Amino acid sequence: MSAREGTAKLPAGNDNDAAGGGRSEQKLERLLAAAAELMAEQGYAQTSIRNVARETGFSLAGMYYYLENKEDLLYQIQYRTFSALLTEQERALQEDTEPAAKLQALIRNHLAYFTRHANELKVCTFELQSLQGERYREIEKLRRRYFRCLAGVVSDILGVDETDAAGERLVRHDTLFIFGMLNWILMWFDPERDAPVEKLGEEMMALVMRGLQGERTPGA
Amino acid sequence: MSAREGTAKLPAGNDNDAAGGGRSEQKLERLLAAAAELMAEQGYAQTSIRNVARETGFSLAGMYYYLENKEDLLYQIQYRTFSALLTEQERALQEDTEPAAKLQALIRNHLAYFTRHANELKVCTFELQSLQGERYREIEKLRRRYFRCLAGVVSDILGVDETDAAGERLVRHDTLFIFGMLNWILMWFDPERDAPVEKLGEEMMALVMRGLQGERTPGA
Repeated sequence: MSAREGTAKLPAGNDNDAAGGGRSEQKLERLLAAAAELMAEQGYAQTSIRNVARETGFSLAGMYYYLENKEDLLYQIQYRTFSALLTEQERALQEDTEPAAKLQALIRNHLAYFTRHANELKVCTFELQSLQGERYREIEKLRRRYFRCLAGVVSDILGVDETDAAGERLVRHDTLFIFGMLNWILMWFDPERDAPVEKLGEEMMALVMRGLQGERTPGA
Repeated sequence: MSAREGTAKLPAGNDNDAAGGGRSEQKLERLLAAAAELMAEQGYAQTSIRNVARETGFSLAGMYYYLENKEDLLYQIQYRTFSALLTEQERALQEDTEPAAKLQALIRNHLAYFTRHANELKVCTFELQSLQGERYREIEKLRRRYFRCLAGVVSDILGVDETDAAGERLVRHDTLFIFGMLNWILMWFDPERDAPVEKLGEEMMALVMRGLQGERTPGA
């Protein structure tokens, strides 16, 4: 199997180029990081394979060794990002037992992931609609899994019956409200004013758990 | 003063074409609505003056009677949308006296505005960076005013001292968390599942005021 087939079909950190394994994977990662940076800055539509080649010093032929086309580039970024984040989050859910501790872990991990991979997360968040067909469906599946991680915890904290329409509606909306808080950070986070994200996570957790009127210790 | 000068300099619902007043304004509104729809769907970068002309039946010359260029189109959409929303919100803040009632009004009005002007709000939310120079600064001013509306209410509810760095940080973040919940709706709202927005507003209000653990009445 060629590296190209390998990366197109098993993109999540697999390396199927038995001969030059690690090096191939490193090159692909460098390529994806540069592409994510360009796409985060100027949007997917404005980014061409040629831009990415120029940025990374790859030849066009070299790019096509790793990727089928531009959409494949976007797919690989999204697939790897969501898979890595999901793996972390699903592991965190197994470690904690209390719903509140689980929620805290999900928020903390999401924000920590954002500080390490802001470009990738931006591309995941704002460019899902740029994927088509099978690629879209694959990523959509990962997004649903991520949604369910958070929704399960929200449901436990609320203590509502999700088989009931009113309960299901409330869990869906509270979960989407929390994703809104998390994802919107991509639009405003300023390291100078808003770091550290650990503290941001505590502030978000306080709002979600106790609301604006709960006991707050802003000076803490 | 020509209509073109008038609309470029005083875009918020003014009509300075004394001769054919109302009709001119109506035409401009139709043009802006069509442009907002195209930009919301495919993004500003992908939308050309020619697309908008085709969609509305305007000639290119007709378009340029109302607008300087494509960026002016985006600016007009953003200026009118933010101005109208801000006028509503600032009036609401004067009507209520209790901070919680003010917050409820801000959330309710924002969501109601979204159901009437989803395209325009999407363009405002995701295309600020597409504006440059003076136009960018004008819209940025309106955004700051809107931010202050919500931040003032959040500050009152929290009861923190905003001149203190810790208080200022908390108000900024809680305000941005709430804007995140509100703006993220643009990404997921499905009228069939999620209407009515009045109820969505109550759910958001409950989360913001009391958190997930507060008394909830999902069946209500």
